[in-house]
Amino acid sequence: MSAMAAYRLGFEVAILDKEQYSPAGQLTRHEFIGSVDDDDLLKRFSDACHVITLENEFVDYRRLEFLEKLGKKVHPGSRTIALIQDKLLQKNALRKKGIPVADFLEVKTASNLLKIIRKLSIPFVLKSRKMGYDGYGNALVSNKQEFDKAYEALTSRHAHLFAEQFIDFQMELAVMVARTSKETRVYPVVQTLQRGHICHTVIAPAHIEKKVTVDAQEIAVECVKAVHGIGLFGIEMFLTRNNRILVNEMAPRPHNSGHYSIEGCTTSQFENHIRSVMQFPLGSTDMVKSYAVMVNLLGSKDPSPGMKKYTTALRHHEAHLHIYGKHESRVGRKMGHVTILGHNPQQLLKQAKKIESTISL
Amino acid sequence: MSAMAAYRLGFEVAILDKEQYSPAGQLTRHEFIGSVDDDDLLKRFSDACHVITLENEFVDYRRLEFLEKLGKKVHPGSRTIALIQDKLLQKNALRKKGIPVADFLEVKTASNLLKIIRKLSIPFVLKSRKMGYDGYGNALVSNKQEFDKAYEALTSRHAHLFAEQFIDFQMELAVMVARTSKETRVYPVVQTLQRGHICHTVIAPAHIEKKVTVDAQEIAVECVKAVHGIGLFGIEMFLTRNNRILVNEMAPRPHNSGHYSIEGCTTSQFENHIRSVMQFPLGSTDMVKSYAVMVNLLGSKDPSPGMKKYTTALRHHEAHLHIYGKHESRVGRKMGHVTILGHNPQQLLKQAKKIESTISL
Repeated sequence: MSAMAAYRLGFEVAILDKEQYSPAGQLTRHEFIGSVDDDDLLKRFSDACHVITLENEFVDYRRLEFLEKLGKKVHPGSRTIALIQDKLLQKNALRKKGIPVADFLEVKTASNLLKIIRKLSIPFVLKSRKMGYDGYGNALVSNKQEFDKAYEALTSRHAHLFAEQFIDFQMELAVMVARTSKETRVYPVVQTLQRGHICHTVIAPAHIEKKVTVDAQEIAVECVKAVHGIGLFGIEMFLTRNNRILVNEMAPRPHNSGHYSIEGCTTSQFENHIRSVMQFPLGSTDMVKSYAVMVNLLGSKDPSPGMKKYTTALRHHEAHLHIYGKHESRVGRKMGHVTILGHNPQQLLKQAKKIESTISL
Repeated sequence: MSAMAAYRLGFEVAILDKEQYSPAGQLTRHEFIGSVDDDDLLKRFSDACHVITLENEFVDYRRLEFLEKLGKKVHPGSRTIALIQDKLLQKNALRKKGIPVADFLEVKTASNLLKIIRKLSIPFVLKSRKMGYDGYGNALVSNKQEFDKAYEALTSRHAHLFAEQFIDFQMELAVMVARTSKETRVYPVVQTLQRGHICHTVIAPAHIEKKVTVDAQEIAVECVKAVHGIGLFGIEMFLTRNNRILVNEMAPRPHNSGHYSIEGCTTSQFENHIRSVMQFPLGSTDMVKSYAVMVNLLGSKDPSPGMKKYTTALRHHEAHLHIYGKHESRVGRKMGHVTILGHNPQQLLKQAKKIESTISL
């Protein structure tokens, strides 16, 4: 979706990916296949580019340093990614700037459960410092048995962990921020609803008090500044039961909770991503209609070719259907999404879920 | 823009073009370069496709027949293109169905000027039957000298001509129509303003009486039916000084006067083009805001790389900028366009023209 925004502004796009023929790779002949750890490949890729950006935060920041040393513009840069991809460093960076976050501490060995409980009480959340997404790399812990199990499972994926206070939130919120060295633009505050730790539904804007909106947007901008961010950032937040905002985590890229902006806002998060990494003037983040609802289309157990079901969905002629062209479906994999704009969020939600129920991807 | 709409719905796209690296060719690795007259190439291209469509009407309908004989779905099909690409056949087909068109007659030799004048009076318009666009293939004729000159110039491009009554219109209108074998959807009636025979500005919807809108939309649908059209069609019309609609000509593809629909309508003409050629349910053609204004960005005499001027344009943060990625600029060539949505068409027009003035492509 970022690649399409780039083409629309007249740019060409090159893609580096581990696997051939990714959704973005389909859109270009400048496709570089292999590992970012391959110096030679990375050099050839960078030779094809004027500006380099990321679509996930799992590229080690030292590989971005490598590109920067080649004289390339990389946004967000290695410094920002270093602070974001390690969630413990991220939380430290945010807390240092006075940004409200849930309490947390580093977990160095399996032995310090008591220390964790003393600081965070139970239940708490045990998390991988890196490589977590969609619930991978997280576990809720209430007792010794759960801790041992989670510790083993998480360290088998990634060696370094931290623990975080469990927040009994009233709502999960998200805010996108676009930032260049000259300008910052904030998107509306949206409500996100998860299903099995995966963002499933987004309601834009969230039904919250004006004061909470203002707070959330201010905090979101502070988060991006705290990591010296240039680009498009998604900031996930909890709204606690006593109406406080706590930042959960941030992503240095267009975010699933911002997909609604393609039709829902004057300038989509993807176009502002491209504009910001180009250090161009940013576009308006105003909503086009009062509300937008987005529902993810997740891979199902029995993905049928499903052309018929897909066309049924299109009969809802107000809906915007996006199918990503991923060649392989897995249960829970994000295969597409549907967005509807209108003036009654409850009705939009109902429509979006009805459409979702007719599609099997 | 059609290719992007196809990708968004999860399809892959293959492109056949005379030249490598066209705007659409940049978006795929399935690029076939050469002439549609090359049977072998056309066969290889068709092997890569399930459904084939066109982005212009200059492919001889017999080449589409060739594809149809290979068992391929082609929309619009050879029968429709045969009726459209020859403007004389097109006008006959429309008139036969009672659709109002300016009077016309075939011009077989340079000698029958008197016959033309007797039927159409002067001035009249001498036109090529095929291959005309953006004023190429048209000439206004008021006397023998102009006729001889136009006849020679036009026949040097294309052998067969016809003559058409000159219409002193009050306004030029256009209507897009999407049609499958089951369903038809009509876009708003827009006003088009030409500059040197090239569509330059589009105001959606046109400021006309309700009755004229209804007439124009009905006539547009009749035009598509008259050529048995499946796909997306742009119908250009004159609004005469006595408030009559006359169809000027139709195009069997997304049309420049429908580019505003990308942001201006719930479903863009490009998405409905893809949906219609797939014989899928069509999307809503309702406008998102009250008005949309589109201004074409034409190639200038002195195309500078112009990055700075381009970024100035982006400062108008409500504007939607589209740059097509054409590698070569020519005076008057359509290099991109800008669209703005809002509630005051005069103000939008002013803004759009201001933006246009800051860009040199």
